[in-house]
Amino acid sequence: MAHLMAVLFADHLRFDVKDPAYRGNDRFVLSKGHAAPGLYATLKAAGAFDDEMLLSLRREGSPLQGHPAPIEEFPWVDVATGSLGQGLAAGLGMALAMRIDDIPARVWVLLGDSEMAEGSVWEAMEAVAFHGASNVTAILDLNRLGQRGPTMHGWHADVFRDRALAFGWQAIEIDGHDVDAIDAAYRSAIADDRPSMIVARTEKGHGVSFLADKEGWHGKPVPADRLDEAIAELGGDRQIRCTPPAPIEVPTAHVDAPGGVARPVYDAPVATRKAFGEALAWLAATDPDVVALDGEVGNSTYTEDAEAVAPGRFIELYIAEQTMVGVQTGLQALGKKAFAATFGAFLTRAADQIRMGAISRADLRLSGSHAGVSIGEDGPSQMAVEDLAMFRALAGSTVLYPADGPSAVALLERMASLEGISYLRTTREATPILYDAEEAFPVGGSKMLASSDHDDVTLVGAGIPLHESLAARDLLAADGITARVLDCYSVKPIDAATLRSALEDTGLIVVVEDHRVEGGLGDAVLDALAATGPLSGRVRKLGVTQMAGSATPTELRAWAGIDAAAIAAAAREALGR
Amino acid sequence: MAHLMAVLFADHLRFDVKDPAYRGNDRFVLSKGHAAPGLYATLKAAGAFDDEMLLSLRREGSPLQGHPAPIEEFPWVDVATGSLGQGLAAGLGMALAMRIDDIPARVWVLLGDSEMAEGSVWEAMEAVAFHGASNVTAILDLNRLGQRGPTMHGWHADVFRDRALAFGWQAIEIDGHDVDAIDAAYRSAIADDRPSMIVARTEKGHGVSFLADKEGWHGKPVPADRLDEAIAELGGDRQIRCTPPAPIEVPTAHVDAPGGVARPVYDAPVATRKAFGEALAWLAATDPDVVALDGEVGNSTYTEDAEAVAPGRFIELYIAEQTMVGVQTGLQALGKKAFAATFGAFLTRAADQIRMGAISRADLRLSGSHAGVSIGEDGPSQMAVEDLAMFRALAGSTVLYPADGPSAVALLERMASLEGISYLRTTREATPILYDAEEAFPVGGSKMLASSDHDDVTLVGAGIPLHESLAARDLLAADGITARVLDCYSVKPIDAATLRSALEDTGLIVVVEDHRVEGGLGDAVLDALAATGPLSGRVRKLGVTQMAGSATPTELRAWAGIDAAAIAAAAREALGR
Repeated sequence: MAHLMAVLFADHLRFDVKDPAYRGNDRFVLSKGHAAPGLYATLKAAGAFDDEMLLSLRREGSPLQGHPAPIEEFPWVDVATGSLGQGLAAGLGMALAMRIDDIPARVWVLLGDSEMAEGSVWEAMEAVAFHGASNVTAILDLNRLGQRGPTMHGWHADVFRDRALAFGWQAIEIDGHDVDAIDAAYRSAIADDRPSMIVARTEKGHGVSFLADKEGWHGKPVPADRLDEAIAELGGDRQIRCTPPAPIEVPTAHVDAPGGVARPVYDAPVATRKAFGEALAWLAATDPDVVALDGEVGNSTYTEDAEAVAPGRFIELYIAEQTMVGVQTGLQALGKKAFAATFGAFLTRAADQIRMGAISRADLRLSGSHAGVSIGEDGPSQMAVEDLAMFRALAGSTVLYPADGPSAVALLERMASLEGISYLRTTREATPILYDAEEAFPVGGSKMLASSDHDDVTLVGAGIPLHESLAARDLLAADGITARVLDCYSVKPIDAATLRSALEDTGLIVVVEDHRVEGGLGDAVLDALAATGPLSGRVRKLGVTQMAGSATPTELRAWAGIDAAAIAAAAREALGR
Repeated sequence: MAHLMAVLFADHLRFDVKDPAYRGNDRFVLSKGHAAPGLYATLKAAGAFDDEMLLSLRREGSPLQGHPAPIEEFPWVDVATGSLGQGLAAGLGMALAMRIDDIPARVWVLLGDSEMAEGSVWEAMEAVAFHGASNVTAILDLNRLGQRGPTMHGWHADVFRDRALAFGWQAIEIDGHDVDAIDAAYRSAIADDRPSMIVARTEKGHGVSFLADKEGWHGKPVPADRLDEAIAELGGDRQIRCTPPAPIEVPTAHVDAPGGVARPVYDAPVATRKAFGEALAWLAATDPDVVALDGEVGNSTYTEDAEAVAPGRFIELYIAEQTMVGVQTGLQALGKKAFAATFGAFLTRAADQIRMGAISRADLRLSGSHAGVSIGEDGPSQMAVEDLAMFRALAGSTVLYPADGPSAVALLERMASLEGISYLRTTREATPILYDAEEAFPVGGSKMLASSDHDDVTLVGAGIPLHESLAARDLLAADGITARVLDCYSVKPIDAATLRSALEDTGLIVVVEDHRVEGGLGDAVLDALAATGPLSGRVRKLGVTQMAGSATPTELRAWAGIDAAAIAAAAREALGR
């Protein structure tokens, strides 16, 4: 990849190494993140840092990690890579951010041939072409050797050329060690009105005879006793410097939001997914940095409400969740507040992209609709029942789960200023209004909806199960059992202090969730209790434990044992009454 | 899709409706699972069941779910669909099972045009062609309308034809309502020595003028007051019956395993990933139904050991984790014991396929290597720190986490007879031997490695943190604190009784895991304690709470606070000593 990188950084990438965040910069994405040393060496040659830092590679505390990550001390990369096949979607996100800001910069993505087996690459190829992002150039380093041996297509560049053409791209085959050919290909990519893929036949280990095109060297350093030999073959010890072309000058951003949309207010039952969509439309009308992303379910998640308000900041990715999250990661790298939504179940399709988003320190604002068995007849493939587990386990994540329209609006508003991965779980059915429009919902807080000094049990829920808990309270009251009800709308961070008090006061917590019993709200409650001191009392967890089928929402909640009757029964049983 | 289905089931799908499990049957996969009513109606016409059952669609207890699922009462489908873009990979798995068994049957996969946006489709297209599965036919129902409006390519069948050709398939464009053209296309697919894609231009709602090719009808039933009109336009009330062609006759399977590989025995430190590979090789040599799947990391997960023993039952999927799991789902549907492995981190790429595998009631035997920050310098993109959360949250899953070679071998052996999703978490570094080769490791069990009647604390771990716990025990002993150490190799189901006794005996559990602190072993321990009675005592959870970087394994465990010193410190602090 050295020749491809050298020609790019010396003559084509318009990039200020001293100001890598400059918004007029071209952007480079190393999709084949395991080739990080090649990127680091190029950046060092471009003056980003010195030899000492370069040689800290992979050491504790070094910003030069085994795979590139955009940590604070390393501002020269925008997104983390290392899980293959993710760079192109991120590059598309950057290109679309440039389009929104009217910045005529370019995005260059270096891909490895092994990662071309990842469907996510072709998913992104489709999206790049569909969105006409002609300022995206993919450079395919066709070195024919994967981790454990030859790739599927070896040096058959025509295979990738034909596919790129069929996906609506320009495609150019070159010898990846011919610097003139590389230069000409980059010029052609810039000139073409389609996105361009440059398929460069290369040798892994080119220029070092005992390495070149040989198997068994993937991820291995040159042995110390052969380093001198390798360096001599490459032309001896040199200190090559290059200065990338200056970036284009762009004015400071100044975009007005259209306005004209009021913060949603509800006084009748509404689905939290609908409240999400209407609140997103309000945010899009209010904040010019807000971008809404859809996976072709915008009429179910109601991101279409945002589309109606700000069509230029609505991006339809069709049924391509991996690309949706990759684009989101690219957008936020260039300063956009990107909100993406699909069914919560289908966010699992992008689990790896979301995981990499956390490593990118990306602000990914995600909403998953159709949570739980409460969706009813569509059945388990459409039900998010593992989403809380997925999002809770991510570093630095925030997990929010509103039970009514006003709380959904307030929490989405709060998400706009959160860092890291934030997740808003919404539900399909309309739910009654619990809160005033002015009520505040701090992250990490909770709402005690009913309590007395002498409660026998604390019922903890969120979303639809919170409403079931309120109904269970009435059932229990009829038996002379007094229950307090806590809305844990903030699943992570969770209101540990209130939970601890509740356990100390009532001695029994029944926590109920329309989610698998593992990894979600119930586990979060237990974690909070364990973290805040000695345990004393009983905690009953209710959640989905079997595989659902199709039925009505009411039938399914009864089947799962998470409806009011089941909650009341669990409390009665625990109390022996 | 009705015409495409009718011609297929009437004249080409060699399928015994009365014996859908018959191994000589052709297989049909409805990748566009939301079109389930079309499949159900076809099966009813083919005599699978009666009108009463057909009309139970989406009702509680009906096997005719909103999306097809292979539940016991509904043996006519082999894999669940409903999350788009997954049918083709499953179909490839079936085709490869037929190849292993020398059965010349065919696999027919009906795809929707919206799902062609999913990269997983192209990933599978690549794999089908690479593996030369010419008995796979993809039928693309190009109706140009997605859930919320027109698809990207409308009726431009040439787009998909060109892509299919570029991916090494035969491609045929037809009018999807011309039954002669459909018949000819199926014949051509059967005759061609490549896999074939039939791109069929169709109208959504064809034959009913108020529906045909109109937006706004996705997922909606015909209104009751227009049913008569629709039925009249379609030719009136009829009871069409068809009998699919008889399946080919195939002999009962009788394949000998090659044998010649002994059950691995270890008396020196070995990485659990290596023990996994060697044990898998032993299983492959012993059981002719065992198939090993690789995501081009077989030299890291050591599935290559199985390849060496049984190359005909080793399937290389390259860097294509979604296809790997899809193929696995198809293989097991046809009776294979399919084991798939990659880095645990990269199994997140197939999270949705694994989720659908649970809905398929599939026996997916998965191993994720390179668990935790203990992989060291490669950094966070390669570290599985959310995998336990993902696998624990799946319905009916089994999660196993061995700490040494003998336990890895015993647990893998056990996995061969487990139903549902089973997961073996392995680690990169060699770990000391703790157990004899003969030691039994029942699912749901644990091993108390050290205990006395007067222990001050119970240290709970698995994998590498178990070894850190043993070292912590020595550190604590030097301070006069006695610790027992429990190996929770079975994370799900977990040994709740032993954990409860441990808490009752010692009053303090310190649970440590090389995984995020959410959703993994620590949460499983708390869940078990809460489920088995009142809580009394203290539980301290140690796990990864921040985003790792690159460093040595030892440095990273210290950084994460999961090494012996951190475990001992947590115990001392909790004990106030």
